[in-house]
Amino acid sequence: MTEIAEQRPRAARTSGRRTGSPQTRAAILDAAMRSFADKGYPGTTIRAVARAAGVDPALVMHFFGSKDGLFVEAIRTGLPVREMHGAIDGDPAGLGERLVRRYLGLWEDPATGWRMYALLHSAASAPPAADLIRNFMVAEMLIPMTRYLRCDHAETRALLAASQLVGLGMVRYALKIEPLSALPREQLIACVAPTLQRYLTGDLPLTG
Amino acid sequence: MTEIAEQRPRAARTSGRRTGSPQTRAAILDAAMRSFADKGYPGTTIRAVARAAGVDPALVMHFFGSKDGLFVEAIRTGLPVREMHGAIDGDPAGLGERLVRRYLGLWEDPATGWRMYALLHSAASAPPAADLIRNFMVAEMLIPMTRYLRCDHAETRALLAASQLVGLGMVRYALKIEPLSALPREQLIACVAPTLQRYLTGDLPLTG
Repeated sequence: MTEIAEQRPRAARTSGRRTGSPQTRAAILDAAMRSFADKGYPGTTIRAVARAAGVDPALVMHFFGSKDGLFVEAIRTGLPVREMHGAIDGDPAGLGERLVRRYLGLWEDPATGWRMYALLHSAASAPPAADLIRNFMVAEMLIPMTRYLRCDHAETRALLAASQLVGLGMVRYALKIEPLSALPREQLIACVAPTLQRYLTGDLPLTG
Repeated sequence: MTEIAEQRPRAARTSGRRTGSPQTRAAILDAAMRSFADKGYPGTTIRAVARAAGVDPALVMHFFGSKDGLFVEAIRTGLPVREMHGAIDGDPAGLGERLVRRYLGLWEDPATGWRMYALLHSAASAPPAADLIRNFMVAEMLIPMTRYLRCDHAETRALLAASQLVGLGMVRYALKIEPLSALPREQLIACVAPTLQRYLTGDLPLTG
């Protein structure tokens, strides 16, 4: 958006509506992420996101083109993916533990936990949300992990590990089923790290 | 419903609407389950379920009292839980393999796969759906499994196994991420069975 366009909607400005600055864009993405977390993909509308961010719906469309575009960008920028990337690098023998430790940390940090929930909520939605999440997971998680592993069946291995982490998020954090939800984090890490390690670097009966 | 009550809504009958027979109840539950699978808990309404089942919304309320009541009963009667119970009994050393084999079979059978999806979809929803699913999972899955295991930390062990199965459902069947979605079933069973077996009967660093 140009500076001229920025200054155009005077009436909107005086009524407290935001215009197209980077801060506005970030506010829209934040409002969108909260809506995806609370109401899922089907329950989220451009209009409601615009209202929550204090902008005109046309501005949301201007920035993101469509609800799908908004969703993809909210997921891409709003999820702590780089945090997970940071857990990949290091000694291969400690990969399983690093991943589960970082993953649990993201769920248990108030700044990121609700974003993880938004991802889970959307992943369990019908298409197109599930398609968009799949593309996101492949690009942002599967490809970096495969590059690190550099072995046969690297993608299958990474997805087996992902399945364990996703299910842990569901049972411990989304459904909050006791006593798993109350298990001390270090005990949980010690239980789950060997599973991830075996999937990622152990002997698996994979052929073809 | 009494026979008299059954015969009362003549107008509805002649217009093709169903009345309160056991078949009608089953039709309502089936319509509800399909709606929970397609639209999730928040997107499902008594009115739409009634329309899909060809009955009056008041009859749905008569049978189930509320949307929550309908949800609980649809989950309870519509999910192939007894099929999973059947996989518990037997040699403890083969428990992990029996569970994952049966679980994958339920997802891959067209008669039950969409019901598994409804469960997953609802589990990732906000409360009250998540609360209802939690109660269901505890009563129908956790307690029977704990009774079978009869050991310390049996509930934590069962929930760790459940987390792996839930995540597998999400990545392989809901998100359908390749190559895990295309991995031959027997290879997947061979990869995952040892994880479940360790969680259920192996040495785990659980204390307290």
